[in-house]
Amino acid sequence: MLPLLQYLAVISAACFGVLLARSKGMDLIGVCSVAFIVAFGGGTLRDVLLDRAPLFWVAGEHYAWTVLGIAVVGASIPRLPADLTKWLHLPDALGLGLFSVVGAGIALQQDTSLLIASLFGVITGTFGGVIGDIVCNEVPNLFRPVTPLYATCSFAGCWAFLGLIQVGVGDTSAQWIAVAVIVLMRMGALRYRWTLPAPRD
Amino acid sequence: MLPLLQYLAVISAACFGVLLARSKGMDLIGVCSVAFIVAFGGGTLRDVLLDRAPLFWVAGEHYAWTVLGIAVVGASIPRLPADLTKWLHLPDALGLGLFSVVGAGIALQQDTSLLIASLFGVITGTFGGVIGDIVCNEVPNLFRPVTPLYATCSFAGCWAFLGLIQVGVGDTSAQWIAVAVIVLMRMGALRYRWTLPAPRD
Amino acid sequence: MLPLLQYLAVISAACFGVLLARSKGMDLIGVCSVAFIVAFGGGTLRDVLLDRAPLFWVAGEHYAWTVLGIAVVGASIPRLPADLTKWLHLPDALGLGLFSVVGAGIALQQDTSLLIASLFGVITGTFGGVIGDIVCNEVPNLFRPVTPLYATCSFAGCWAFLGLIQVGVGDTSAQWIAVAVIVLMRMGALRYRWTLPAPRD
Repeated sequence: MLPLLQYLAVISAACFGVLLARSKGMDLIGVCSVAFIVAFGGGTLRDVLLDRAPLFWVAGEHYAWTVLGIAVVGASIPRLPADLTKWLHLPDALGLGLFSVVGAGIALQQDTSLLIASLFGVITGTFGGVIGDIVCNEVPNLFRPVTPLYATCSFAGCWAFLGLIQVGVGDTSAQWIAVAVIVLMRMGALRYRWTLPAPRD
Repeated sequence: MLPLLQYLAVISAACFGVLLARSKGMDLIGVCSVAFIVAFGGGTLRDVLLDRAPLFWVAGEHYAWTVLGIAVVGASIPRLPADLTKWLHLPDALGLGLFSVVGAGIALQQDTSLLIASLFGVITGTFGGVIGDIVCNEVPNLFRPVTPLYATCSFAGCWAFLGLIQVGVGDTSAQWIAVAVIVLMRMGALRYRWTLPAPRD
Repeated sequence: MLPLLQYLAVISAACFGVLLARSKGMDLIGVCSVAFIVAFGGGTLRDVLLDRAPLFWVAGEHYAWTVLGIAVVGASIPRLPADLTKWLHLPDALGLGLFSVVGAGIALQQDTSLLIASLFGVITGTFGGVIGDIVCNEVPNLFRPVTPLYATCSFAGCWAFLGLIQVGVGDTSAQWIAVAVIVLMRMGALRYRWTLPAPRD
């Protein structure tokens, strides 16, 4: 299942990247660059840190063609709805959920411990969005003082995935349940402004 | 030819890094740091992503000595012309052109497809400048809403290089023509303010 | 000695990361994220650039548990002293010193030349702090126009370490002396505002 999940993750993240770049008024090449960075960033960091070669998008060329297609089509649509920033959240949440579970799953395949696998899930899930924010010169979501839960959703979903596998649930079911946990938790956090308490200093 | 092109690319990028750091009023170590980051950044990312070990600047120590020399000399010159930012553009364009072609050429040597090779050309060509801008706290050129063509020049030059090789032009000729395309296109874009249209939202 | 020095370095850097994140008012997950990034960043970059797999924190799980423990405890302390930024400097200086010496030592073990080993010392020592500053949206210490010596301390300490080994001093003594050089030089630079002259333009 991991290749399918990863392909869906790349598609979601590319859509998020296109919307993010367009909300900043970028040109065609800017839209393509941000789409590639957001769609490939997290998985690339995971592959480099786990020393997996070749990278997933070098091994399977369909990833690059898909992102290129989404970026070109997305940059060509003459006008997008005015409330664009609202529309960013769904593909962002889908990418977060899918990449987190894929990252934890691939780390497990390399026989890491559960804690390390959960870290790889969070890294893979959040890095694309973080680096997208950095290149767009935003303070990354992950590091703003008090924002709706983001990395927390990834972390919770990774542990749901790892826990379900430990108690004997099949891989495929565990993966889809964990993706649903992350996406729903993230959309709920945005809607109801769920935050973690910040330490008082 | 690739080692020679890469050495020229490192020299150009180091000069750009020194001028960039000095235009920000940095001290000796700041100048050295930015010179190393700009000169080694793109090629390092390429080598890591292609899993080439050791890195080009670990394998050949002359790269590090050359950058160190340029940085120390460049930081010691007592005064630079007031219109320093204008002088940044030529070594930046040279580094962009040389690194793009070297990146695409090295990726091809590792049997990547043409699309992936062109992506490695753009990554290698632009990453040094992008990370230089980030450490100097600028919004990277690549991601400013409407700026003269930058990544586009790299992309066009990489495809010129790959196309020329496909139609049977010798490697060396194809490399130099592609470098010339990128450098001239970048200098033209700066002079005549060529931009891509930004999508209207 | 290198594993012990590295473990102390991770502890120091994690404490610095916690204090840095709390001085920005971050929540629990933000504190954990910054602690992991600062504690693992430099060593991870070193391992990736030297193509050492698995990464030090994948090979030894005690690193991740230690950082997690420090972050959770550090985020739970209800109030920290008001002059928090002053307290940042000691763990930062310790992490700088320990990571620099570990980085140079591990590079040497891989038979790099002295210049390359010193570069790896500086990269390993400073990268965690630089990336911590970037995610907290500060201009990294390393690149502010005129600040008290930071990378310079790392550089001087690495050369002290390499020089002592060349003249026959034992590894352990050379390591501790170099760590002391870096920490004392950094604390002195902060206290007495030692800076390098910036080139006049």
